[in-house]
Amino acid sequence: MSLKVAVIGYGNIGKFAVEAVLAAPDMTLAGVVRRQITEHPVELADIPLATSVDELGPVDAALLCIPTRLVYQYASKLLAKGINTIDSFDIHGKLVDLRLELDKIARMHNSVAVVASGWDPGTDSLIRALFELMAPKGITYTNFGPGMSMGHTVAVKAIDGVENALSVTIPVGTGIHRRLVYVQLTSGADFSSVEKQIKQDPYFAGDQTYVYQVNDVDSLKDMGHGVLIERKGVAGKTDNQVFKYEMRVTNPALTAQNMVAAARASVKQKPGAYTVLEIPVIHFLSGDREALLRRLV
Amino acid sequence: MSLKVAVIGYGNIGKFAVEAVLAAPDMTLAGVVRRQITEHPVELADIPLATSVDELGPVDAALLCIPTRLVYQYASKLLAKGINTIDSFDIHGKLVDLRLELDKIARMHNSVAVVASGWDPGTDSLIRALFELMAPKGITYTNFGPGMSMGHTVAVKAIDGVENALSVTIPVGTGIHRRLVYVQLTSGADFSSVEKQIKQDPYFAGDQTYVYQVNDVDSLKDMGHGVLIERKGVAGKTDNQVFKYEMRVTNPALTAQNMVAAARASVKQKPGAYTVLEIPVIHFLSGDREALLRRLV
Repeated sequence: MSLKVAVIGYGNIGKFAVEAVLAAPDMTLAGVVRRQITEHPVELADIPLATSVDELGPVDAALLCIPTRLVYQYASKLLAKGINTIDSFDIHGKLVDLRLELDKIARMHNSVAVVASGWDPGTDSLIRALFELMAPKGITYTNFGPGMSMGHTVAVKAIDGVENALSVTIPVGTGIHRRLVYVQLTSGADFSSVEKQIKQDPYFAGDQTYVYQVNDVDSLKDMGHGVLIERKGVAGKTDNQVFKYEMRVTNPALTAQNMVAAARASVKQKPGAYTVLEIPVIHFLSGDREALLRRLV
Repeated sequence: MSLKVAVIGYGNIGKFAVEAVLAAPDMTLAGVVRRQITEHPVELADIPLATSVDELGPVDAALLCIPTRLVYQYASKLLAKGINTIDSFDIHGKLVDLRLELDKIARMHNSVAVVASGWDPGTDSLIRALFELMAPKGITYTNFGPGMSMGHTVAVKAIDGVENALSVTIPVGTGIHRRLVYVQLTSGADFSSVEKQIKQDPYFAGDQTYVYQVNDVDSLKDMGHGVLIERKGVAGKTDNQVFKYEMRVTNPALTAQNMVAAARASVKQKPGAYTVLEIPVIHFLSGDREALLRRLV
């Protein structure tokens, strides 16, 4: 029984989400939902395109490939229709509250929300939890980059006067980051006002942030990204246990793949909202459970 | 409510398990069970020591710090008493069958078994599953060492004529290993017969194995160990996604710590037997769920 999945939004992540759903052996792409349809993109020729999920056939789960700040609005409506939602909400300080709010709606309408299931928060969260399982005492450092941060870039694009933007994250070690923001302004926009708004945004306020005005942001873009998560800690009473996790990925491709895995897991949970830490890892994988256990354990 | 945990067996892993239970904020050490008691070790002065779990007070979960080949026998008896069991069974090819057999017994007696919850199988299995979640197509290589392999060492010690033994695992890359086995023989034992039995043992049959006779195995022992798990794979349709996990640990300390985490998780599961892949990662951690989510996700 193939899982019917809709992709909501067709920006960076949406495009990779379409590919990841089509590549999943246990899923069917129910369609793509956009706010407005001005043309039918050639790569979606055989795929239903609509302005509402109601115009598509039956949908089991929806991948919310939309800005983080729209997640609650979209998820609450879809959950109320009985459709599972998967988001890659990325504001760490607010996701537990999002989970609590969506939990109520999901339970009421017999649906499941998997919140914050990109890669950070998301799979990186699972790594941090595993590191703490293995060494309960100690310090974990999450070092991002170098690479383009999607959430930060979207936040900059939302600022008045910004035509196009790119936010690059540079790891300076031990969990400290530098943010390099490249902005292309609309005509007449004031650079120092834009710069000030960026630096005050909660996405940037805690980090050393440099803002540069450029003529052409697109020529700077590379969606490769990386992470290095490190922990040195204590197992029982034994010090000096060292753990490292490193990845080099195409940022939106991994986000989309993780959301596809979460869609698969969503149909195996009871109604409610979950972070990835609250779902058994095997539920994210496709295939026969016993065969998976024989291969992976 | 503190979880009452018994440690069964007091060899390498048992000693570290006692420390890890004592270090866990949510556990009480119910006691240590040994096959025979010739003396009361000084470090266990304040801890009940018995030859059967029946001689201890109430026990919620038992950590089976015993040779892999005795796991079924011990686990089945304890599960039948309604006590959860945690093992670090380490024969990859047989653990799914162990899980199925213990599952029946556990369901019948309202108890929970967590099987193969050391570090490989165990936490490494979780890493392999996560890597596959993120890049469903591709190849994962698990490279062990350099370091002492507990399971392999125990297997050699079980051979007639072996007084003491040490099996060291050397990674030669892409998941291929060399085994260096150091044996100290009982007087009159035949080295070539011992060597032949080691090379035929299922633990060693698949690897390049070198056996050396030495006078004093203890002077060679260092319980440090390591792992490097690598995957290059495809997320959706995007190639070249690269993931690495590396750890440098004290082998029995990590095994014991992981078993302690699994004991904690065991009381949150319905009756039955589970591998670590079938349990939400958050169940392995101590503390308030919401606080954990705020910190780790």
